[in-house]
Amino acid sequence: MTDQTRLSRQLAFSLELDKLKTILRQTLLVDSSRQENDAEHSWHVAMMAVLLAEHAPPGADPLRASRMLLFHDVVEIDAGDTFIHDDKGNSDKAQREQAAADRLYGMLPPDQAAELRALWQEYEDRATPTAKFADALDRLQPIMNNFATKGGTWHQHGVTADKVLKLVERIRAGAPALGDHAEFLVREAVRLGYLAPAPQAP
Amino acid sequence: MTDQTRLSRQLAFSLELDKLKTILRQTLLVDSSRQENDAEHSWHVAMMAVLLAEHAPPGADPLRASRMLLFHDVVEIDAGDTFIHDDKGNSDKAQREQAAADRLYGMLPPDQAAELRALWQEYEDRATPTAKFADALDRLQPIMNNFATKGGTWHQHGVTADKVLKLVERIRAGAPALGDHAEFLVREAVRLGYLAPAPQAP
Ligand SMILES: [Ca+2]
Repeated sequence: MTDQTRLSRQLAFSLELDKLKTILRQTLLVDSSRQENDAEHSWHVAMMAVLLAEHAPPGADPLRASRMLLFHDVVEIDAGDTFIHDDKGNSDKAQREQAAADRLYGMLPPDQAAELRALWQEYEDRATPTAKFADALDRLQPIMNNFATKGGTWHQHGVTADKVLKLVERIRAGAPALGDHAEFLVREAVRLGYLAPAPQAP
Repeated sequence: MTDQTRLSRQLAFSLELDKLKTILRQTLLVDSSRQENDAEHSWHVAMMAVLLAEHAPPGADPLRASRMLLFHDVVEIDAGDTFIHDDKGNSDKAQREQAAADRLYGMLPPDQAAELRALWQEYEDRATPTAKFADALDRLQPIMNNFATKGGTWHQHGVTADKVLKLVERIRAGAPALGDHAEFLVREAVRLGYLAPAPQAP
């Protein structure tokens, strides 16, 4: 592959990325003006990886987590965003996202495609401390925005505290101090009426 | 400062960052549906720093450039976006942005505030190869989007080729191969009527 072809492929991929700005998530902006999109969400969590680096667990590389978060939603250009509490949408999510990764990373020079797809796959597998730290931030940011919007998405979708507390455990697994903070937000949200409590057993 | 106070400050800054999603730039999205905001723009150019790393000049650190680009527009939360071809707005831009940096980075623990403000100041000064590479990407992305939207912002603001070619020289200073590509886009844009040619001397 000539240098010129490498550059052309990299620039075509760069331009294709613009589409992530049009993929909407369920989360609202803090000012409640509109739904957040995947590109600005990816920026937000990549920033948080830098800002909250000291809370990463032993063995995690926060700057690699930041890069991972920059790329973590690129497949949603083709596969769309799947709401975390949408069980039906989540059943074929992995398949749709692998096909998206084939097409999108396939636009790049092969060596670069392999490297960046591996970075995304590491995130998807949530097996390394770095991927768990990245996942924790990806779960924490919507909880912070939902709290700041007095329960925005939670109300709209009838989400209850037990479901959010499951995500809190994932946050704790990737960054214990951030798990504690997320749990505090969830308990406060229930107390303030931003989030419905867990349904009582009959 | 206790660990808890550090975390509270970092989380307050993280939430404050959400406002960058509401600061609009002149650039249109590639699908022309709306103006781009600062948060998604920052994501886009931080991605390009990773993707185009091999075109950085000797002495540049592309991953540091990517981090620099994540943070480069944070001051616009207070100072707003100043269009690059707006001479009046650019006259007091530096002053407004220093005041914004005082307030915003002042939210963080002092050691972190100093480190991240220095990263932003390095970008502002455009003196290091890393900052010049970051600046090149920050100039290239709007040219790519303007070309893809058949001249979007250029038409709206009566921008002529001579002005854009000055930016091309900044791109070339930070990444020679990307400067060549930007110049190609500008010449093509004039040929296709996306961009008005330089005004003729009388
Ligand atoms: Ca997602």
